[in-house]
Amino acid sequence: MAKKLKISFLGGVGEVGKNMTAIEYGDDMIIVDAGLTFPDTEDTPGVESVIPDYGYVKSKAGKIKGIFITHGHEDHIGALPYVLQDVKAPVYGSNLALGLLDSKLAESKIKNAKLVTVTDRQVIKAGVFSVEFVRVTHSIAGSYALSVSTPRGVIFITGDFKIDHTPIDGKCTDLTRIAEIGNKGVLLLMMDSTNVERNGYSMSERNVFGALDAQFALNENKRIIVATFASNIHRVQQIINCAIAHKRRVAFSGRSMIKIAEIAKTLGELKYPDDAVVDIEKTSKIPYDKLCIICTGTQGESMSALTRMSNDDFKKVKINELDCVLFSSSAIPGNEKMIYNVINKLCLHGASVVYSALSEIHVSGHACKEELKLMFNLIKPKYFIPIHGEYRHLMQHKELALEMGIGEANIFIPAIGNSIEIDKGGIKKAQEVPSGRLFVDKNKLLGDCEELMKERKIMASDGAVTVIAKITLTNGYVTEPIIISHGIDIGEKLTEEIKNDIASTIASGDMEEAGAEEARIRIKKSVAKKLQKRLSRRPIITVVAEV
Amino acid sequence: MAKKLKISFLGGVGEVGKNMTAIEYGDDMIIVDAGLTFPDTEDTPGVESVIPDYGYVKSKAGKIKGIFITHGHEDHIGALPYVLQDVKAPVYGSNLALGLLDSKLAESKIKNAKLVTVTDRQVIKAGVFSVEFVRVTHSIAGSYALSVSTPRGVIFITGDFKIDHTPIDGKCTDLTRIAEIGNKGVLLLMMDSTNVERNGYSMSERNVFGALDAQFALNENKRIIVATFASNIHRVQQIINCAIAHKRRVAFSGRSMIKIAEIAKTLGELKYPDDAVVDIEKTSKIPYDKLCIICTGTQGESMSALTRMSNDDFKKVKINELDCVLFSSSAIPGNEKMIYNVINKLCLHGASVVYSALSEIHVSGHACKEELKLMFNLIKPKYFIPIHGEYRHLMQHKELALEMGIGEANIFIPAIGNSIEIDKGGIKKAQEVPSGRLFVDKNKLLGDCEELMKERKIMASDGAVTVIAKITLTNGYVTEPIIISHGIDIGEKLTEEIKNDIASTIASGDMEEAGAEEARIRIKKSVAKKLQKRLSRRPIITVVAEV
Repeated sequence: MAKKLKISFLGGVGEVGKNMTAIEYGDDMIIVDAGLTFPDTEDTPGVESVIPDYGYVKSKAGKIKGIFITHGHEDHIGALPYVLQDVKAPVYGSNLALGLLDSKLAESKIKNAKLVTVTDRQVIKAGVFSVEFVRVTHSIAGSYALSVSTPRGVIFITGDFKIDHTPIDGKCTDLTRIAEIGNKGVLLLMMDSTNVERNGYSMSERNVFGALDAQFALNENKRIIVATFASNIHRVQQIINCAIAHKRRVAFSGRSMIKIAEIAKTLGELKYPDDAVVDIEKTSKIPYDKLCIICTGTQGESMSALTRMSNDDFKKVKINELDCVLFSSSAIPGNEKMIYNVINKLCLHGASVVYSALSEIHVSGHACKEELKLMFNLIKPKYFIPIHGEYRHLMQHKELALEMGIGEANIFIPAIGNSIEIDKGGIKKAQEVPSGRLFVDKNKLLGDCEELMKERKIMASDGAVTVIAKITLTNGYVTEPIIISHGIDIGEKLTEEIKNDIASTIASGDMEEAGAEEARIRIKKSVAKKLQKRLSRRPIITVVAEV
Repeated sequence: MAKKLKISFLGGVGEVGKNMTAIEYGDDMIIVDAGLTFPDTEDTPGVESVIPDYGYVKSKAGKIKGIFITHGHEDHIGALPYVLQDVKAPVYGSNLALGLLDSKLAESKIKNAKLVTVTDRQVIKAGVFSVEFVRVTHSIAGSYALSVSTPRGVIFITGDFKIDHTPIDGKCTDLTRIAEIGNKGVLLLMMDSTNVERNGYSMSERNVFGALDAQFALNENKRIIVATFASNIHRVQQIINCAIAHKRRVAFSGRSMIKIAEIAKTLGELKYPDDAVVDIEKTSKIPYDKLCIICTGTQGESMSALTRMSNDDFKKVKINELDCVLFSSSAIPGNEKMIYNVINKLCLHGASVVYSALSEIHVSGHACKEELKLMFNLIKPKYFIPIHGEYRHLMQHKELALEMGIGEANIFIPAIGNSIEIDKGGIKKAQEVPSGRLFVDKNKLLGDCEELMKERKIMASDGAVTVIAKITLTNGYVTEPIIISHGIDIGEKLTEEIKNDIASTIASGDMEEAGAEEARIRIKKSVAKKLQKRLSRRPIITVVAEV
């Protein structure tokens, strides 16, 4: 029987974040990206980050010939400190991606990982596969699409990308090479769906400079604080250039901003004269109109530099009416309320605040509709699978593919855990692979905690009640039940009623026969019933019945 | 001493929602609006709605000459079922506003409220005040600005408004009367700040018809489901008109949609032939291409008709690939993630979904910058107070007022609890009034529950641990501590350690002297310390120590 080409989706489809894909042929497997996602507080309260359940690749760890990283964003590398504990394959990626990864691995005390830096058009052999790194532009330097040659044909994976003809480092999306690859024939295109809802083209990163420059000019007497994504090296470069042009020195603030700037400077991805930058600790003596602070916190993250400034909880920078804060960023859906909270608080301290509703000091890093069409036209794939997007994005990407002439039978909309096989007969769904999500907390993998999350959510909305009672089974007598509640206000009257209910529950049944466990269950039921009836609440109820 | 004109802000400033303002002069007080807000789940888990703490007006209930309602949105009338239990003043408002209020009062079993319907330019005498209702356009019919004559001059309160020159009911913002009022001289303008960030003009409600019509034409073979705000009667009217034009019958779905449509039809605000509408229960026999369902759920509310459809939890409507769902709405900040969840699920069931990112089937009900400028030019106020907006909106509205020639000293940015006085000397801040928020849950007022909320938030992120131990104080001996945890995974090993810690805590101190309460405190501290050290968690810890 001929071997099959199999692709398994472990993350990043039907969602934005934690991208991870496995490609197999016979006894060889490669992994493309292994990222994390920042969870919804409502959905998974108290969890810091979530990674794909990688049990499937772990179970085939011996087959894995390489891990290929498209770029250094958290949603593409963030799971590696965990995955690399179980998978001992080399990791291939750009200088910057691996620089960022290396720093993460050091923090997690992961040693001996084999990280291999690649450059443009470099081809890596990995078992039956050979993987070419094709330069693309994105909101982080060192981004690559992957052209994966397999025994069944070429799979072209765009990674996250846009087509910026004037990128800051001059390294354009390698359209020439993409055209060549397309010309030779591509079996399957897997493409970024993030911005499929947007018509036209994304703006060039270079456009941001004009908007920044205008803001610097408008606020020439103020201290300027620019919040942006730490990993967007080109944005940081432009802010530095703008500050230098306006005779201001730059101070980095926020742990990840300082760390990533340092890595990027070392790797030569970020370029500035040493005296352009000053330590944030030493800014107190610099006049406001000679200073530009570049910081983290664009998403209103509670511990970020900017959020702490807004809470007046950041010793080095006290916000006042001589501050101008620029958000060189956009809101990740779900974060709007937190971001606006920070903006309101900055305004309350007197700062003038400029954000996306007011100015164009940010551009997206993802391809819009016309760029996606261009990619379809160059690659001319036989099959198409939209990736990196929520289900609505994937569906719209399918619509776009249909418009571009891909046949409906040749398009597959993936979900996490889906696996597809491609042979001469076409693309078809194979058996699901084990999949899911793992929670990370304080840099530790918590494993599957769906039950914990359920309890936390119940306690968040309905509270917790503990009943402690001494029961004498022989005569159905209850001594002094203690009722403790948190997050739910029971009140004296209802507490008395509950105590009476407990007494009559125990008195009414034949407790000696029923036994202690049954007594606990009956008490719990009686308390639950009363709370539901009186308060319309279903808290977590714990009964400790001493017999 | 001359009497002072005093205005107190109880809600709706520094926030969007729960609008409530009190105006006093000597022994007379009037209230403008009394609304609710839907809280942030993260901030106040498990709470259904929040209303202003109206203790201040309650304490002066005898002085209150009238409650004046600008329009019937929840954030302007939602607190009245509670306020009217303590304040026995007449309520003045439009036909529709009072129709909606009446229905809310009936649900809350509030009887004997005196509701007085007003019409355009009607003037109500209320103690020293006389209040004129001035027609404005907004996203609900029957909206009024209030021109309040006081012994110190006229206060003009816009309420929520836009300037729609072609409203569906032909009742434009009464610019003629506004010009006359402005011409006679206005002491103070209080104006809606919601859309102050938007340049230009808001689109006319009438524009929506074209976009709706195009979608109906595009999806002529499908069942069309339109989600919109139930209270936006003119939008509902246009959807009905569009459905009739496309030879479809209309079915309302969702409790508030059915209820409000009924009230509006009775009041003559909604007009359609009886056979245009069919009961949702009787739609199963109507062909898909002859049906249009109008439903609630634009914000992804968990119990709404549309969300239940998306969860396949709505018997009457099973979503499939022959459905087209139109969101004739925009996202209220903070709801984006929930809305996209619903959209993704609808797509998963095969529906095509059209929402604001894809089409223009919604327009805003609030004035943009040019409309606000027009109002400034007509009213020409001496003083200006921006209302209805977060702090960032109020600040930008101040900037706009400065541009329009209002002096900085004549502008006041209010916060909840602020009170201002106006006399010949100008506008000045008076003593704060009691203020805050009250939580509503299952139609009951919970009072101040900040402590409950704090507990719920801790349990949501860090869980709860209960320790039950029997202690013999005389010999420092602990019998069998029981450790119960929810929402936090302690594990066997750590549980053992905690038990040992408890034992040594009790053994180490002179417990007989310290006493039972101190023993409990020490046990709690030792458990907290260990959990913080090992799990970096600070759960709610309860210690029940039986001595």
